[in-house]
Amino acid sequence: MDFSSDTSAPAHPAVIEAIMRANQGMAGSYGNDEITAKLRNELARVLETDDFDFWMVASGTASNALALSVLCPPTGSILCHEEAHIERDERGASEFFTGGGKLSLLPGDGAKIDAPALEEALDNIDEAFVHETPAKVLSLTNLTESGCAYYPGEIAHFVEMAKAKGLAVHLDGARLANALVTCGATPAEMTWKAGVDVVCLGLTKAGAIGCELIILFGEARAKFDKLKARAKRAGHMPPKMRFLAAQAEAMLTEGLWLELARQSNEAAGALAEGFVRSGGELVHPVEGNEVFVRLPEPVIKALEAAKAKFYPWPGDCYRFVCNWTMMPVDVKAFVNAL
Amino acid sequence: MDFSSDTSAPAHPAVIEAIMRANQGMAGSYGNDEITAKLRNELARVLETDDFDFWMVASGTASNALALSVLCPPTGSILCHEEAHIERDERGASEFFTGGGKLSLLPGDGAKIDAPALEEALDNIDEAFVHETPAKVLSLTNLTESGCAYYPGEIAHFVEMAKAKGLAVHLDGARLANALVTCGATPAEMTWKAGVDVVCLGLTKAGAIGCELIILFGEARAKFDKLKARAKRAGHMPPKMRFLAAQAEAMLTEGLWLELARQSNEAAGALAEGFVRSGGELVHPVEGNEVFVRLPEPVIKALEAAKAKFYPWPGDCYRFVCNWTMMPVDVKAFVNAL
Amino acid sequence: MDFSSDTSAPAHPAVIEAIMRANQGMAGSYGNDEITAKLRNELARVLETDDFDFWMVASGTASNALALSVLCPPTGSILCHEEAHIERDERGASEFFTGGGKLSLLPGDGAKIDAPALEEALDNIDEAFVHETPAKVLSLTNLTESGCAYYPGEIAHFVEMAKAKGLAVHLDGARLANALVTCGATPAEMTWKAGVDVVCLGLTKAGAIGCELIILFGEARAKFDKLKARAKRAGHMPPKMRFLAAQAEAMLTEGLWLELARQSNEAAGALAEGFVRSGGELVHPVEGNEVFVRLPEPVIKALEAAKAKFYPWPGDCYRFVCNWTMMPVDVKAFVNAL
Amino acid sequence: MDFSSDTSAPAHPAVIEAIMRANQGMAGSYGNDEITAKLRNELARVLETDDFDFWMVASGTASNALALSVLCPPTGSILCHEEAHIERDERGASEFFTGGGKLSLLPGDGAKIDAPALEEALDNIDEAFVHETPAKVLSLTNLTESGCAYYPGEIAHFVEMAKAKGLAVHLDGARLANALVTCGATPAEMTWKAGVDVVCLGLTKAGAIGCELIILFGEARAKFDKLKARAKRAGHMPPKMRFLAAQAEAMLTEGLWLELARQSNEAAGALAEGFVRSGGELVHPVEGNEVFVRLPEPVIKALEAAKAKFYPWPGDCYRFVCNWTMMPVDVKAFVNAL
Repeated sequence: MDFSSDTSAPAHPAVIEAIMRANQGMAGSYGNDEITAKLRNELARVLETDDFDFWMVASGTASNALALSVLCPPTGSILCHEEAHIERDERGASEFFTGGGKLSLLPGDGAKIDAPALEEALDNIDEAFVHETPAKVLSLTNLTESGCAYYPGEIAHFVEMAKAKGLAVHLDGARLANALVTCGATPAEMTWKAGVDVVCLGLTKAGAIGCELIILFGEARAKFDKLKARAKRAGHMPPKMRFLAAQAEAMLTEGLWLELARQSNEAAGALAEGFVRSGGELVHPVEGNEVFVRLPEPVIKALEAAKAKFYPWPGDCYRFVCNWTMMPVDVKAFVNAL
Repeated sequence: MDFSSDTSAPAHPAVIEAIMRANQGMAGSYGNDEITAKLRNELARVLETDDFDFWMVASGTASNALALSVLCPPTGSILCHEEAHIERDERGASEFFTGGGKLSLLPGDGAKIDAPALEEALDNIDEAFVHETPAKVLSLTNLTESGCAYYPGEIAHFVEMAKAKGLAVHLDGARLANALVTCGATPAEMTWKAGVDVVCLGLTKAGAIGCELIILFGEARAKFDKLKARAKRAGHMPPKMRFLAAQAEAMLTEGLWLELARQSNEAAGALAEGFVRSGGELVHPVEGNEVFVRLPEPVIKALEAAKAKFYPWPGDCYRFVCNWTMMPVDVKAFVNAL
Repeated sequence: MDFSSDTSAPAHPAVIEAIMRANQGMAGSYGNDEITAKLRNELARVLETDDFDFWMVASGTASNALALSVLCPPTGSILCHEEAHIERDERGASEFFTGGGKLSLLPGDGAKIDAPALEEALDNIDEAFVHETPAKVLSLTNLTESGCAYYPGEIAHFVEMAKAKGLAVHLDGARLANALVTCGATPAEMTWKAGVDVVCLGLTKAGAIGCELIILFGEARAKFDKLKARAKRAGHMPPKMRFLAAQAEAMLTEGLWLELARQSNEAAGALAEGFVRSGGELVHPVEGNEVFVRLPEPVIKALEAAKAKFYPWPGDCYRFVCNWTMMPVDVKAFVNAL
Repeated sequence: MDFSSDTSAPAHPAVIEAIMRANQGMAGSYGNDEITAKLRNELARVLETDDFDFWMVASGTASNALALSVLCPPTGSILCHEEAHIERDERGASEFFTGGGKLSLLPGDGAKIDAPALEEALDNIDEAFVHETPAKVLSLTNLTESGCAYYPGEIAHFVEMAKAKGLAVHLDGARLANALVTCGATPAEMTWKAGVDVVCLGLTKAGAIGCELIILFGEARAKFDKLKARAKRAGHMPPKMRFLAAQAEAMLTEGLWLELARQSNEAAGALAEGFVRSGGELVHPVEGNEVFVRLPEPVIKALEAAKAKFYPWPGDCYRFVCNWTMMPVDVKAFVNAL
């Protein structure tokens, strides 16, 4: 089995079918089409609000960087975890899109931000001291880079701290579906109800070809025109946007994205359980579709013999990512067979 | 009939089929997949050379801006036509991606650069004068924004002028297929054989969902790593790149892109002929799939009655764009019926 | 005599004396000193208002680029004359400081913007068309690059046009003193009373070592914190700012800057008169301290024999710049001797 | 006595005298003057080499950011101490000037980089992994932000480590004179002989009005044209550069900068000794003109009673900065009187 990454998985058949349906006749370019219009309605249902604007892009890096670029001025900084994707895996995209803003890094287990560290960082902000770059945005990631989940209450708590100091809050939700399933939370509870200003809701890892939604809530909607202008000049306004909308529609309709995430999470759970039974030691709690684990030599050998694919990871461990194509029952069988 | 834009057309069925074929099993992310590997071979055949590197993006703006960002330093400028897409329709993308480079605008009929104006601009470059921004790149567009074509000999002549002053040459080929058909030229003749360093070869308008190739030839290949790093940090390295490669493969195989372009060009020719017969006055020669025309009031009324879609255009005229879904015979019938 | 540039002149003795006076004891850094505080009062007197904020930098390029960076977003453009200093002589500083904004060029005689051309450009702004970069700022230069002056009424007229479309107005006043003298206008009449949002008031060419004031009026004051943050991160917040303030104080006190400008203007007038008498042909009206002139061969020979320094200029002419060290009577004698 | 900052001190009289001498007649602008030409010779003497190029700016932030912008591409990162001035006190200038490069922070006592931490960071560089931002520059600061000195051998060791991985090395020498005096090292030993590519040699804190030298050695000289272009477009090419050169000449001639630094260092030593005698606890070794100290309550009271100026500092301590105007004997008397 291939546990290398959920980005290596194909798209769900429903996505392909939606693309075929979308491929009919002429349609307005740049988001001015009927599928995009209908998607808005679907999103309103999913998000339980109409107080939002959204844009679609094909990569998570674009999604995060564009979102942050309308929240953080070039002279400001973004508080995030030191292992956040925006810091580690996006080649300085946030710095580029913000025009030279900074990331200020915070520690914390499981790639979740440590609350006292955040408090200290917030306390240290001194807008009047022109020499230092003041934090303007708090960026959270759910699931975190270590596969851990923030519960809505935790998000709300961090938001409250951040807003008390005037910061905006961004949520990197490349694996939001997995976090929602784990927390038993609705998209609304995890985002605007918790005070999040902008969420990057990822559908690519969940089963799309390439579709990430940038959703602005409430007051952040005032930045929507700016977001579109920045999307355009970053090359993230492809003409035939109906095909992005079709992907999103397919994934959101009847909760497919959550169903697939539940399946991946269960697969990861089964994998973790099997590893632990075989003497493996989990490095982080498994709260999504990822397992970070230290494994006994024989297990590693058995995995290699079974041609399993997975990556060694910093911290002397291995990362296994389950994706929507894996049936929990198959994963269970696989791990039992080791 | 809908002549509003070739970007409003659906994708060719072969593209959808290629996407379906690509949607099998796990595949390496970020371009490390078999379809992308095979595409390289197909490209080598199409381009009649192996001396190239390429990257794929989903929009023409991304394609041009990324290409230019590896050719032009922040302290340099790009010579282009005053009506070029990079100047008029990309919201400052080139300025953004180059980190603040400038566009220096040149006049010319049919959106083709006027040779004496280019010569003067080249003569005025004074690298030693630190106050002024020296031109570092010449950017040509084929088809131009007015639907006119540069022949390979013209490209080669401009390239020679530019290279004599040390400039690199970029070719915006969002509608390259249409130009190739009109000129009866091969992709090789229009690009590297004419001395072009980097071509942005567009397939979206030709019939893909969203697929533009950035191709670096010869010495420009030294910039390929830089291009990839910039693509990554601009969010133009989507994880499931096999679906971009699949589109390109579908369009290039057996010359589909050229066949569709030929059809669009013929449709535009039929349309133009019909307009002229009805008293219309062509503003530019029709050398691709676009017709820019001044029309008598009764013709406009008839078009509106027939629910034709088209845009009024600067210069007191109208623009009609034919796309791959239009059969020349149908366009002929349509214009005769007016 | 050396007519090469007013930037090649030394500083006026009063400036040196002010620096010596400022060089006493400890003083707050970064503008938190008494001399800067006193300068504010002097400026309020000169500008006839207290509704302003200001910053000081050592070069005109820094002054213009910083000012424009708080008026124009990265996704916007700046309307200016095609020969403006910000376009021709600042190596893309405005593009750099705005984070990739564009300059949109307008024609006009004497480097003064042509009103109908401005009107057309303003009419063409379409905020809703996300693909094109909308103008957000009008930048005027007084004296222009051709040594011509805008009268306050002209400024006010252009401001009115620009403001009707929501643009902010920037005035590049590297040679503002010369324009004020020519027009018989007060600084207030030429700036805030005419509706200018931000003026870059130059003192370097007028006789300082290096001191340019960026002055924000009225609503533009809301951008002052942003201006300071941008000044800091651009390295334009030198610690010992008292020495910049001292220069400004010396130049403004008792109208020294205007007195010196009057002298330079008179010198230029004498020079122009002499040239015309000798068969020279003025290319632009002489409305400041610069003379652009076509000269008969014998006059050029005589000038060279007299070891005069001056530059050939585009448009087959020569530029002569008078500076504060030149007595009009000496210039008259010089030109008579030719 | 005022220990708030060495940037609050006036300029040394020799600097003012040099400015007066420079204020004679016309001189070439933008560095094309005789004083700048002579300064080059003086620098060659001071640096014991002719294999260098240099530029002058008025602030340390400008100096560091410009230097780093020619060493680090927008897609790269700069390794520096987590308390480095470029990270803490320059409002993101390096991110701005590099076009969105990153700073990667390293720990270490006394604001000196911890060697094992540097080694780990260097080992982690993986150029082939396009998602992460690879380090391209190592930036050292001497004196550090905590007033500690690197000896030439330490610099050389760090340079060797960095160069083995292909990094360039930048030295922020805002207080280089103080470090040189402490180490008994020559400027050559501390810079090019130790392998430093670019040093920002600060003279402002040492006694100038505002003058920082950016000096490129050896292979880094290939970047000099780029540096000038970037200086120009950042507004750091003031026209009357002779006045910057005059300051540098005054400070360097007959080693004035070192003499003044020696005096400041001795003053700081006397202060530290006095504090320790009074029960103070030094937080860092005093290796320059700065004292970081925890003080008993009565000493603080006595300082306040004596109207001494100084800042509380992170780490529950106080910072005292001695400057060139303080005679060691006076400081000794002052501290004894407490």
